[in-house]
Amino acid sequence: MSSYWSDFVKDLEPYSPGEQPDIGNITKLNTNENPYGPSPALLEAVRNQLNDDLRLYPPPAALRLKQVIADYYQLSTEQVFVGNGSDEVLAHVFNGLLNHREKGPLLFPDISYSFYPVYCQLYDISFEKIPLSEDFCIGLEDYKRPNGGIIFPNPNAPTGMLLGLEAIENFLQCSQQSVVVIDEAYIDFGGQTAASLIDQYSNLLVVQSMSKSRSLAGMRIGYAMGSAELIAGLERIKNSFNSYPLGHLQIAAAIASFEDEDYFQKTRQLVISERQRLTAQLERLGFEVLPSQANFVFTRHPHQSAEELASRLRELGIVVRHFKQPRIQDFLRITVGDESQNSLLIDALKSIVSD
Amino acid sequence: MSSYWSDFVKDLEPYSPGEQPDIGNITKLNTNENPYGPSPALLEAVRNQLNDDLRLYPPPAALRLKQVIADYYQLSTEQVFVGNGSDEVLAHVFNGLLNHREKGPLLFPDISYSFYPVYCQLYDISFEKIPLSEDFCIGLEDYKRPNGGIIFPNPNAPTGMLLGLEAIENFLQCSQQSVVVIDEAYIDFGGQTAASLIDQYSNLLVVQSMSKSRSLAGMRIGYAMGSAELIAGLERIKNSFNSYPLGHLQIAAAIASFEDEDYFQKTRQLVISERQRLTAQLERLGFEVLPSQANFVFTRHPHQSAEELASRLRELGIVVRHFKQPRIQDFLRITVGDESQNSLLIDALKSIVSD
Repeated sequence: MSSYWSDFVKDLEPYSPGEQPDIGNITKLNTNENPYGPSPALLEAVRNQLNDDLRLYPPPAALRLKQVIADYYQLSTEQVFVGNGSDEVLAHVFNGLLNHREKGPLLFPDISYSFYPVYCQLYDISFEKIPLSEDFCIGLEDYKRPNGGIIFPNPNAPTGMLLGLEAIENFLQCSQQSVVVIDEAYIDFGGQTAASLIDQYSNLLVVQSMSKSRSLAGMRIGYAMGSAELIAGLERIKNSFNSYPLGHLQIAAAIASFEDEDYFQKTRQLVISERQRLTAQLERLGFEVLPSQANFVFTRHPHQSAEELASRLRELGIVVRHFKQPRIQDFLRITVGDESQNSLLIDALKSIVSD
Repeated sequence: MSSYWSDFVKDLEPYSPGEQPDIGNITKLNTNENPYGPSPALLEAVRNQLNDDLRLYPPPAALRLKQVIADYYQLSTEQVFVGNGSDEVLAHVFNGLLNHREKGPLLFPDISYSFYPVYCQLYDISFEKIPLSEDFCIGLEDYKRPNGGIIFPNPNAPTGMLLGLEAIENFLQCSQQSVVVIDEAYIDFGGQTAASLIDQYSNLLVVQSMSKSRSLAGMRIGYAMGSAELIAGLERIKNSFNSYPLGHLQIAAAIASFEDEDYFQKTRQLVISERQRLTAQLERLGFEVLPSQANFVFTRHPHQSAEELASRLRELGIVVRHFKQPRIQDFLRITVGDESQNSLLIDALKSIVSD
């Protein structure tokens, strides 16, 4: 620690992202990337943008991209916010919309995206973690208490479990005193987006990522959708932080992704059917698999330590994620890969559990 | 304003970036972009990165890029921080290194980058503006007073005027109680970077941008260099905000830029010689031009209103920047374009002032 740091810096406990191993021959199933890669049309669109225009600042409001997203979800551009990955979008959301100490603590699940408490530290937001049920469900009834905001992923991570749109709407009907953020990073793998509820609930904010279902983790593009008043608050923060969070290539890639709907649907379905196959095979090996609507499964074996399994897999060149954390230390979070990656994983697990 | 906004949001007065007009046939001399564009080798490097890897998260620490920057400036990777444009880097600097209310206000020049007071609002930092001298110089003697940090651009913007390295080192020798940030967005157009002083002064932070001298405004890449302890503070903030601020394509472009030193030197020199030509021609038309070491000139005419000149130029399809601000409302800030852009500008001004 240093006397040159602002006071709060010494107490920060930064987020630990999943490892990005710099080795060639490994099967990487630890950070929920899409196995199928971006579409050829998208790569072509970015290639066409590789020109002298890179010398020019990008359009600070990224209006063309906002229009494409708005059209896709039947919203207006005033209801769309874009940023440098959904992590940046979430950071602005925590700072601009979820800091209401006078109304009560921010609420989120005890088992959830581990970046949430880090944002709270960064922006000095008081929070309370609401335990998932015994069977790892989010019980929205438990969130009906004084609060300064509510945020949860849907499907939840790392459980993969989904809340239906009806449950969400029922909850919104009696929860309008604070902002409700639904973090839909994984929604395209089996859920229904709550974006359709935005016109009715001015306190609802839906955050999405292009990293997972749109295969663009390496380009950093996220967005949020909500009432014009919520989005205006986010724009004030963004324009006080960095006027140009998205460059020309990111904007071109994002637009191209929405324009290639066929590829999006095809790869989305491939991930879903591979998830089903992977789940069935894990169950055949004796694993319990939580019902996932995401592009990963959360799974435990009745007789095997998860930490030990992760380390045995790693020796075999397969990286999965294990959280050393109360309630879930027996589980592994395994990204759904493509057919050959999933088969490698199953073969490896077969050899380990039959030892 | 909305009850859903965090309290401080309603008082924010966001930064206003220079206009990015969406019209084809204009001569854009308002946001200090480089007229020459990125090098062919750089475009090729980015093209080679357009592959399936875009589905994978980028390396969160961007270590290969840090190594290239460290080598270029004879530093170590622990002395380098990278971010999504120097605006994002500056935001983290204000939050993490310049918030020391107990030591005194942050100090910066009254005529300077207009984003500084916006960051102060965003992070609730008390500040004091130190007036430039009558002839628009930064007088470092005036900064020898209790303070929580010091920041100034060198060359300063929008004046373009440079402080020499010796003056900076003399100042650092007796100013080690707080962090001194030198914002070198324009240093490559005529100044000497203070990066060479980093090993001696652990409170010195140098911020640079790849938007100007490296023609990459459209890709959003900035960096900071300083002692390992300052950089460690910035990393804590960054990893509590967004683990992956730079995507694969940004990293590839940045590395390629440093690897094509010939192109960098050639285009840098072209801008410098065009600045000299432009300055001489403006003076021939009766303009006063402050001595610029940047890729823009700051200029006024003894008998013409700057606001009126800007609007007449705009009618002729040329956009320059005018700041409606005390002390400098008589000036225009004009980006140094390429030969044909500068000739267009001079012809237009000739026709206007001889009316």
